[in-house]
Amino acid sequence: MRRRAVIALGGNALIKEGQKGTIYEQFANTREIAKSIVEIIRDGWDVVITHGNGPQVGSILLQNDIAKDVTPAMPLGICVAESEGLIGYMVQQCLSNALKKANIDRPVVALITQVLVDRNDPSLTHPTKPIGPFYKEEEAMKLLKEGYHLTRQPKGWRMVVPSPDPKTIVEADIIRKMLDDNIIVIASGGGGMPVIEKEDWGLDGLEAVIDKDLAAERLAESIDAELLLILTNVEKVYLNYNTPQQKSLDAVSIKDLKEYYMQGHFPAGSMGPKVLASLRFLEHGGQKVVISSVEKGYEALEGKTGTHIHK
Amino acid sequence: MRRRAVIALGGNALIKEGQKGTIYEQFANTREIAKSIVEIIRDGWDVVITHGNGPQVGSILLQNDIAKDVTPAMPLGICVAESEGLIGYMVQQCLSNALKKANIDRPVVALITQVLVDRNDPSLTHPTKPIGPFYKEEEAMKLLKEGYHLTRQPKGWRMVVPSPDPKTIVEADIIRKMLDDNIIVIASGGGGMPVIEKEDWGLDGLEAVIDKDLAAERLAESIDAELLLILTNVEKVYLNYNTPQQKSLDAVSIKDLKEYYMQGHFPAGSMGPKVLASLRFLEHGGQKVVISSVEKGYEALEGKTGTHIHK
Repeated sequence: MRRRAVIALGGNALIKEGQKGTIYEQFANTREIAKSIVEIIRDGWDVVITHGNGPQVGSILLQNDIAKDVTPAMPLGICVAESEGLIGYMVQQCLSNALKKANIDRPVVALITQVLVDRNDPSLTHPTKPIGPFYKEEEAMKLLKEGYHLTRQPKGWRMVVPSPDPKTIVEADIIRKMLDDNIIVIASGGGGMPVIEKEDWGLDGLEAVIDKDLAAERLAESIDAELLLILTNVEKVYLNYNTPQQKSLDAVSIKDLKEYYMQGHFPAGSMGPKVLASLRFLEHGGQKVVISSVEKGYEALEGKTGTHIHK
Repeated sequence: MRRRAVIALGGNALIKEGQKGTIYEQFANTREIAKSIVEIIRDGWDVVITHGNGPQVGSILLQNDIAKDVTPAMPLGICVAESEGLIGYMVQQCLSNALKKANIDRPVVALITQVLVDRNDPSLTHPTKPIGPFYKEEEAMKLLKEGYHLTRQPKGWRMVVPSPDPKTIVEADIIRKMLDDNIIVIASGGGGMPVIEKEDWGLDGLEAVIDKDLAAERLAESIDAELLLILTNVEKVYLNYNTPQQKSLDAVSIKDLKEYYMQGHFPAGSMGPKVLASLRFLEHGGQKVVISSVEKGYEALEGKTGTHIHK
């Protein structure tokens, strides 16, 4: 069996800071990323690629909101599915082109992916994840009365939604078969669409979002991946990040990392879920986690940079 | 080898006439359709499902247009990809639930699908297919000056885009492998994203849409399907449709149907592409085409209604 890896691309990989998010920017960024994924595949890795969708789903939610009096607004789960189509198409086309250019004959395809969560997940009754457009005071009050959860942020009010813990990737069996068939799979984009299992009904979607790194970890477990490569906007994981005591982690054991995690070095909105995903993966059969920037992904895998987490 | 069929669902299957297109309506409609697809699968067919996206992509284009000053509007090809995510997710979840309820253990997944067209397709320089929102005179003139193609319709001006002839399904090899693995595939939704092959570049997307029935035919060819089942908003194909001489076709040979097609019985915007797809399929290895309504799909397959086209 060839070596399997899950590559998790940060949401900011496709729309960089300062960019507006036009399709030309997104395709140009995707083509750059595709080049380094090709190097990873050339090195003998069978990969499943997953990606964030923050800016894209934010834009889709905004479009739905602005146009809601003219055409019915779609709920969050559906917007996530739309973003899987959008981003999946870009990654599929750019990676496929880059592989052909490198004379590597491997098919690539993006799958619509559902992620099962526990129907009793505490986050479902206590939503905390801010998403979508900013609202003015008046509109926010109206939404609050309608039963939505909102939070006040410096730029205005925003909806908050549950971010339940992913349990399993619904399409995991399919993905495993596709890997056996030598297919490169893009899956669980934007964390996948959260679903619960209802008796006498089956799967049902939720108004929630799943952290894409925690979903990537479940994906990696389910395909017996050896490696989880998390690519984000920093080159390494840091202790005391953004303080005078900031210190990068080059190689770290699961034991030490767990200690740092418990000490509160990694905030919930950024490095926290990535570190939690790393710890889970290594405790559930994974061999290695590498965290680095999108730009340095291949160099990190070669051991030249990044944070390397081992058992 | 089990028998293979492609089922092509009309765009109006998921949003019925008179409905607004809320997500609740769309899911309710999809659940109904799923029930009859389960019956077809139970009868021993391995199916690939494809679907239209007219109302959904129209809504996405409208949202993009209305919000364009706030967030970058995505081009048509990307909107088609978003609609593949949206509809693929619905069909995947509803069909999967319906299969489980029927104690049929088959996985279901939707694929992001590209469709190759000829870069010299004459429609690329002569766009004719109206899509998206209606514009007022003033805005239409502005868009015309910007180089867009528009057409005047009773309700206002609309953009027209090319609708090139599909040549091959880019992901056909992948779909064949998945069928061999017993997976039920949803593919080429909305006709798929049209792409051309560019030297020294690879595949590149187009501002165009592909007729979903013509794409369904290429899909059926590429998986060596025996049957193409086209489900639309009429129970049968008619000669002299909507005239006092209207006459339904129950069983018709390819030879007779070709004759009727040449005589102009089937308009370009509705039955024309379905009949052309049928003729092509039977001339390229297909055994049978059945055209009927979404509601009567299974009955039609049983021979109780619909138009049955044979060699």
